[in-house]
Amino acid sequence: MSRVYNFSAGPSALPEEVLNQAREEMLEWRDSGMSVMEMSHRGKFFSIIADELEQDLRELMAVPENYKVLFLQGGATAQFSMIPQNLLRGKTKACYVNTGAWSEKAIKDAGNYCEAVLSASSEDTRFTTIPDVAGWRVDPDAAYLHYTSNETIHGVEFQSIPDSKGLTLVSDMSSNILSRPVDIGKFGLIYAGTQKNMGPAGVTVVIVRDDLIGHAPKSVPQVFNYADQAKNGSMLNTPATYNWYLVGLVLKWLKAQGGVAAIEQRNIAKSRLLYDLVDKSSLYRNPVEVPYRSRMNVPFILVDDALDKPFLAAAEANGLFELKGHRSVGGMRASIYNAMPEAGVKALCEFMAEFERTH
Amino acid sequence: MSRVYNFSAGPSALPEEVLNQAREEMLEWRDSGMSVMEMSHRGKFFSIIADELEQDLRELMAVPENYKVLFLQGGATAQFSMIPQNLLRGKTKACYVNTGAWSEKAIKDAGNYCEAVLSASSEDTRFTTIPDVAGWRVDPDAAYLHYTSNETIHGVEFQSIPDSKGLTLVSDMSSNILSRPVDIGKFGLIYAGTQKNMGPAGVTVVIVRDDLIGHAPKSVPQVFNYADQAKNGSMLNTPATYNWYLVGLVLKWLKAQGGVAAIEQRNIAKSRLLYDLVDKSSLYRNPVEVPYRSRMNVPFILVDDALDKPFLAAAEANGLFELKGHRSVGGMRASIYNAMPEAGVKALCEFMAEFERTH
Repeated sequence: MSRVYNFSAGPSALPEEVLNQAREEMLEWRDSGMSVMEMSHRGKFFSIIADELEQDLRELMAVPENYKVLFLQGGATAQFSMIPQNLLRGKTKACYVNTGAWSEKAIKDAGNYCEAVLSASSEDTRFTTIPDVAGWRVDPDAAYLHYTSNETIHGVEFQSIPDSKGLTLVSDMSSNILSRPVDIGKFGLIYAGTQKNMGPAGVTVVIVRDDLIGHAPKSVPQVFNYADQAKNGSMLNTPATYNWYLVGLVLKWLKAQGGVAAIEQRNIAKSRLLYDLVDKSSLYRNPVEVPYRSRMNVPFILVDDALDKPFLAAAEANGLFELKGHRSVGGMRASIYNAMPEAGVKALCEFMAEFERTH
Repeated sequence: MSRVYNFSAGPSALPEEVLNQAREEMLEWRDSGMSVMEMSHRGKFFSIIADELEQDLRELMAVPENYKVLFLQGGATAQFSMIPQNLLRGKTKACYVNTGAWSEKAIKDAGNYCEAVLSASSEDTRFTTIPDVAGWRVDPDAAYLHYTSNETIHGVEFQSIPDSKGLTLVSDMSSNILSRPVDIGKFGLIYAGTQKNMGPAGVTVVIVRDDLIGHAPKSVPQVFNYADQAKNGSMLNTPATYNWYLVGLVLKWLKAQGGVAAIEQRNIAKSRLLYDLVDKSSLYRNPVEVPYRSRMNVPFILVDDALDKPFLAAAEANGLFELKGHRSVGGMRASIYNAMPEAGVKALCEFMAEFERTH
């Protein structure tokens, strides 16, 4: 068949231009005589790719000079352990805000290394809102304050950076990194798996302020130590080289789109199309409070869940794939990351309107 | 330029057939409407890829039923920590054999979790041999005995499985997995990064006997716990999906070559060509004792090291790349993994003979 519109929550759709370039360079990158995936990570060819990758990310996100940019393995999930191991710096507590499934996982793993203080939670609303920052219980003895900037399963997103009340701010930005401008200077550390807005799965980006690293206990293995990884250009051991290259292609594509500020405008427009349709419909419903709705992940239910299966089947017949919601919440979910073109969202909206008319 | 012969120690040359197939399927895998790297790891398309990957590896390596096959992230280096965390099972010691740089790294990281008992070492010979197994000091209270089956930097390889004297045998097979048949049943656990004989960097294969897992302390995060990963089909979090796919293509290529026994014959022939040339030469020299020479990594020095630079320059001019030895030992190194065709080794031998004649 021809290429479909793919609304997967991650791994997710990539820009077709990126796939085309990867295809063209598959057997030989530039004049190197070899595929990127065959290159020594310490060789002259891959060094160019690695340098451009970091430089492009620094440029796109306006990363200040006093921050290190790391490209690691293990996904955001490995960071749930690496963050307390590296950032506790002798303290015994860290604060966490619980706004959904990903926050919960981060909290659970932090508990292996420290007391994970629950500063706020929206669990009582089934994660359809974000607790008012004014009410967050922030412990001044905590090493940092952690929150998840976008919850992919519940479709809840922070629309601004919360006041950390003096604590070092740490954020899991896996599912909305590069979708909107962010003032990195307000954070101690941000991290993100690449498989949503940055490329294929297999790389985890960590951006961390200089002064926070180098304080991990000696018992933390080098490969899990930010300072050691930073000293070695994230090449303490062999990195996922081809994945770095693909992330680099996505960053160059994003620059060609006008960068993060430009893509934010498109993300606003795309998500508005979909939320407007859902809100005007009597068949579809999104339970998230309007100010906290995610621009990246739009979950919705059909008020008659007997229509779920016919909806999904008809969607696929119309070239609209991966719309089934996460098993823990049911219903549908359309993930519309940077690489989803407006045409894909329009096609979905037209299909949903037509489905409602005929059911 | 056209594609060169690439003797990189890893990431390293891949079969051209694999790259061609990856190129053809880049924009759409089979009739899925999407690239493999865009697929949800839990979706119906990727499930096929994941299932075939495990099945093909089990078949190629004749993995017994009572072993789990895991596909993880972080490289063999992450395993240096995961192995003691998972396999100590309440014990406080593990035995390690030191045959080179990679053994040393494994030993260092194990020290974070237990007493790493040094059972034997060839450090006093500068790692040009393997200590006689009869003399290994094996502590019966140790949880396991670890060795590195092939040392990429020093070019030293175990030609048979050592007697573990009753201990659970664990081996880092990163650089010779799938290059020769191995009786998995003799091991408790083997592991390997994929970037030498199995595909691109970014996946770590762990094959572990059932009864050894499920005993890790609760403080080990799920993502680093073999039992939890096994329960979740190595998808506790998003795996490096595209890398899995590429490893899968390499495995299918290997099956088409006749499997591991057939490729072993080619590896014997290829390495013999090169060692014969070196041994007959008065310019080149390999310091490793003959019975322990690696079939995968052939390090050699030029007796006049003033010729190193001219040698490398002339090699590149002849389409022979990545021959520079590891910085810690100097000289040259030709890595000739499964994907290096005999024609590549012959071209190298012809060049080396010609270089000797003219210098």
